[in-house]
Amino acid sequence: MNAKQHDRRRFLKKSAALAGLAAGAIPAVRGQTANAGGDLSYGERSRFVTSLRVGDGGDNASFGRSGNVYTPIQDSIGIITPSSLHFSSSHGSYPPDINPQEYRLMIHGMVDRPMSFTLEELKRLPFVSRILYIECNANRPGPENKTVADSHGKTACSEWTGVPLSLLLKEAGVQAGASWILAEGAETGKHTKSLPLAKARHDCLVAYGQNGEPVRPHQGYPMRLVVPGFPGYSHVKWLRRIKVVDQPYLTPSERFHFPQGPKSVITFPSGEQRLPGRGFYMITGLAWSGGGAIRTVEVSTDGGQTWNQAQLHDPVLSIAHTRFSLAWNWDGEEALLQSRCTDEMGQFQPTVAEFGEPKGVTPEGVLRREAGGGHWPFIQPWRVNRDGSVHNAIG
Amino acid sequence: MNAKQHDRRRFLKKSAALAGLAAGAIPAVRGQTANAGGDLSYGERSRFVTSLRVGDGGDNASFGRSGNVYTPIQDSIGIITPSSLHFSSSHGSYPPDINPQEYRLMIHGMVDRPMSFTLEELKRLPFVSRILYIECNANRPGPENKTVADSHGKTACSEWTGVPLSLLLKEAGVQAGASWILAEGAETGKHTKSLPLAKARHDCLVAYGQNGEPVRPHQGYPMRLVVPGFPGYSHVKWLRRIKVVDQPYLTPSERFHFPQGPKSVITFPSGEQRLPGRGFYMITGLAWSGGGAIRTVEVSTDGGQTWNQAQLHDPVLSIAHTRFSLAWNWDGEEALLQSRCTDEMGQFQPTVAEFGEPKGVTPEGVLRREAGGGHWPFIQPWRVNRDGSVHNAIG
Repeated sequence: MNAKQHDRRRFLKKSAALAGLAAGAIPAVRGQTANAGGDLSYGERSRFVTSLRVGDGGDNASFGRSGNVYTPIQDSIGIITPSSLHFSSSHGSYPPDINPQEYRLMIHGMVDRPMSFTLEELKRLPFVSRILYIECNANRPGPENKTVADSHGKTACSEWTGVPLSLLLKEAGVQAGASWILAEGAETGKHTKSLPLAKARHDCLVAYGQNGEPVRPHQGYPMRLVVPGFPGYSHVKWLRRIKVVDQPYLTPSERFHFPQGPKSVITFPSGEQRLPGRGFYMITGLAWSGGGAIRTVEVSTDGGQTWNQAQLHDPVLSIAHTRFSLAWNWDGEEALLQSRCTDEMGQFQPTVAEFGEPKGVTPEGVLRREAGGGHWPFIQPWRVNRDGSVHNAIG
Repeated sequence: MNAKQHDRRRFLKKSAALAGLAAGAIPAVRGQTANAGGDLSYGERSRFVTSLRVGDGGDNASFGRSGNVYTPIQDSIGIITPSSLHFSSSHGSYPPDINPQEYRLMIHGMVDRPMSFTLEELKRLPFVSRILYIECNANRPGPENKTVADSHGKTACSEWTGVPLSLLLKEAGVQAGASWILAEGAETGKHTKSLPLAKARHDCLVAYGQNGEPVRPHQGYPMRLVVPGFPGYSHVKWLRRIKVVDQPYLTPSERFHFPQGPKSVITFPSGEQRLPGRGFYMITGLAWSGGGAIRTVEVSTDGGQTWNQAQLHDPVLSIAHTRFSLAWNWDGEEALLQSRCTDEMGQFQPTVAEFGEPKGVTPEGVLRREAGGGHWPFIQPWRVNRDGSVHNAIG
């Protein structure tokens, strides 16, 4: 904290020198006659705000390639991701255009009372809201990435609102011997996911609300399953049925994924950004864990020789993005920035070497993807060059 | 809680009877080929989601009348208000179309070092994020209102991110004898507000972020002053200068407003909505206070004869919208619904009579607006008729 305060004072002195001006010189403002916000009934962004989701291969156009688009988290502010910019991995299907009047959610299988709910019926039930991150397991640091959207843009954080799945299962009457559920979406490919019944009863939501409005089409309108802390894959979009079963089904798209471990990344400064010059900056980023709340984030600016405790910004919520920052006075020399975190379970974010070691894979092997599937939480370094340019420094 | 659990069980039995169906009858889904979310780079709402801000007089078109548009809080979900739907009171001016490259914030007056900051300079400073409501004092229950957007739509809640004003004031060096600030916006009318220096130093933000993205034009792009718990009027949009002074200035638009007291309102069911029939519903609404966190919300369904403790949904944050709900089994008879709340300071939401009494004004006089300006926090009742229609029952 002392170092930080010191940094801040240095900035303030410098800024005072730079920013001094004669009192009374009020800057002019342009464009007084334009209605910059567009139609008053629905306020759009400023025309100067142009952040967009970017797809695989750097295109940001429509659905040609993989159907995957990434959150531009290099532009993220706070912890909420605008719904328009929430990443989307659509498993090769267009979002179905579901008429809410015709929507039905079916609960069947090993239950006493198979049920079908309309959207209106679901919205009449007890509900909860939670601010939760969702991260796709394909979020993978590696030398092939240029920006933090490339390496970490498959995560986002929203206020999700919906009906506890436990309530629906209780309603349907789960039969003895049931141990799993199968959740199916309504897209062309009928993406399906097996989940342990214990998880379904613990904290899953059948969610119709995202950030204060109905879930958007790319996120599963009108209904998505939210499975806190599990890979994005599990959060079945366009949810149309839940079948209670006695074993996991190996559907074509099936993999077994469980809570994600702690992960953090610096979003500013990050790959392809540029610092305009030496001086005071706030290094900032996001941390999250499927294991609960983030407990600590540390930031190194010297390639991991020394680590500084970052500030965690309120609110620090369980299984949510957590904003961190560290005041930094850049001296204009090359610097290697990275962050690491721990969660309330005591889990820690590994280095590439620590990640590979239990699997018997070298760091080089990990980066060549020889360490198997699952979550890829290892530390992401960014190199700041003397010209202020920032580059991916992994591997 | 027992009554609530009982209600829930009744619903579940009823629903089970209604919803029974043969397992295997998976509902059909339409529109598999449409990309319902539009351009992948920026995900729009579903075409079936049509909630809009409505202006004075019920028009939702452009800027003809007062320039005021209200949050459609009858459709609100959770506590975050979508930025597109955040109410806007623009004091007769169009949002200026400010180029962020040309934007400057000036701090001057009784300071040692008058300063001017670019947007980029401000974004390099230490920042905080807070989920905070902003409510316009014109939010006024009364017999003239039909919907909850009419009576309570001039409130919204966002995650605001920005620089603590205290930091900028420290930087500029406030001189002895200073006691107020004057904050000025860049719109045509140059809306200006006097605020006590103590408040400015306590918790005000110079905010560039709202709900994870730059503040939208109707909310003050690129920068608005956020004054937690004070009337919307104080949260100067398109903020261009802060002058440190030794007295409050009575600008043409000036009034002195201080923290708002506790207020709550039921958003469902509310005016002009219709219940489809007797049975189980979740009564839900929002509560907030400029005095801190909401402590309790009570709901009455019998015109105030009896009150039930409502559930407060997490997160319950200081000076933020707080979602509440109460399970209710409607028997099909006429019902009078209302909510009341208290905050952590022990302040309570008054009835119309309690609101008028210290001012020597009768309830009828309060509703005829004889009780002076300021905040209008009194209780809002909704009548549910036997046909399920819901109407404003105040006065």
